[in-house]
Amino acid sequence: MPENSYIHGYSVRESERLADQAETLTGLLHHDTRYPAGSRVLEAGCGIGAQTVILAKNSPGALITSIDISTDSLKRAEEKVCGEGIMNVTFRQADIFRLPFEPASFDHIFVCFVLEHLPDPAGALEHLRPLLKDGGTLTVIEGDHGSTFFHPEDKDARRAIECLVELQQQAGGNALIGRQLYPLVAGAGYADVHVSPRMIYVDSSRPGLVEGFTKLTFTAMVEGVADSVEKQKLMRHEEWDRGIAALYRTAEPDGVFCYTFFKATARK
Amino acid sequence: MPENSYIHGYSVRESERLADQAETLTGLLHHDTRYPAGSRVLEAGCGIGAQTVILAKNSPGALITSIDISTDSLKRAEEKVCGEGIMNVTFRQADIFRLPFEPASFDHIFVCFVLEHLPDPAGALEHLRPLLKDGGTLTVIEGDHGSTFFHPEDKDARRAIECLVELQQQAGGNALIGRQLYPLVAGAGYADVHVSPRMIYVDSSRPGLVEGFTKLTFTAMVEGVADSVEKQKLMRHEEWDRGIAALYRTAEPDGVFCYTFFKATARK
Repeated sequence: MPENSYIHGYSVRESERLADQAETLTGLLHHDTRYPAGSRVLEAGCGIGAQTVILAKNSPGALITSIDISTDSLKRAEEKVCGEGIMNVTFRQADIFRLPFEPASFDHIFVCFVLEHLPDPAGALEHLRPLLKDGGTLTVIEGDHGSTFFHPEDKDARRAIECLVELQQQAGGNALIGRQLYPLVAGAGYADVHVSPRMIYVDSSRPGLVEGFTKLTFTAMVEGVADSVEKQKLMRHEEWDRGIAALYRTAEPDGVFCYTFFKATARK
Repeated sequence: MPENSYIHGYSVRESERLADQAETLTGLLHHDTRYPAGSRVLEAGCGIGAQTVILAKNSPGALITSIDISTDSLKRAEEKVCGEGIMNVTFRQADIFRLPFEPASFDHIFVCFVLEHLPDPAGALEHLRPLLKDGGTLTVIEGDHGSTFFHPEDKDARRAIECLVELQQQAGGNALIGRQLYPLVAGAGYADVHVSPRMIYVDSSRPGLVEGFTKLTFTAMVEGVADSVEKQKLMRHEEWDRGIAALYRTAEPDGVFCYTFFKATARK
């Protein structure tokens, strides 16, 4: 993936959003990923390190190698990880399709919010497989914007989310990839593929998620593509504004918001 | 709800579908509903008894009263329950808005796949509340057709599901009610409202759900409204056929199907 096709961009606000997202979703997505002390783990596509921190804290004895194609992201990831006093992560700049590792170098591979941005996610999974030892595990986590539904319903909000999907597609990615993890991972030759959906369900009895997910993660992510939507005239300005307002409306006391992430595990 | 507005009709095939659905979903929806021996339970809207059997088996010591507006459905429910040798259920014909019970008659009220068919679900919940003793519980389970997504994507399949939603709306119901349980139950004056989503996730590693849910429950339900869709010209015949074929396509080895039910619990 060329660096400049990363749809969400690399702004400061985007960095904060990724941090917010990781914090809110930590329990739901990561609680069941713990690697044994001494095991060698490859995090393929660490970005600015939002998941790296969680990964390293949950598996403090594991030896984690985190790669990313963007040197700028890697620098921020390293700062974040150092700032947390984490010592078990090594960073390295690398392309997921040309990885500088010997076969069977890792016990475990971890891929989170990466495949959605790749034009050839199946190829990426195939390239990663030889790096695993026999019996080693693969863990993949992805969202799926098409899993979004909410109350009250609103057609402009739906359209705004579709714009996000279209823009990600233009950039060579796939914002509907979560639902496809089972065929993707099984098709790439892994065994014992198991997919578990992780739904974020938000109503006003869960104020942390109302703020942390509905507003600061999901709606902020949609708002983040406003300029591209306007430039490409994907929606009229007033429709867009109504759609964003309708997404915030789902965070009111009688509103509900649902989004599903998917977590796949498999063995070589 | 007038009996003839029940969208799914009362055919033999429909009876089988409801039985299939209850059997496949039993664990997911009902495993955490167990009423103590001696407690008085009202099942409001038992239909043909698909859930009644599960309810009674999971709480063999509870004293269950199951009501429905349709005498024909009640007869079938009674036959089914008797056929299973279940002794703790009493059936009674009644309208949920004119229930023949004294206030505080029940420790628990159970409502499953009923609100979706009512023009005034909030009113129904308000009418039920006085029948509970103080501290008694309400349990509500509903689906949400708008929660459906699948791989491969298909616009005709989406449109076919929208037709189901439109027909249910014409009949005075709401096929998107699952997501609204929190505001509905809280708005009807109940306390301690808790909603948990129950997603049915189906890929080919789960062959029981491929048959039991994707094909025999969901797609069969969509197929069940074919005549109404044709009569009202909601879709062209060939589009409809393509949509149904696309739903069956999601049951192939590389397909995925997702649907979410919602379970609300609350106290008086």
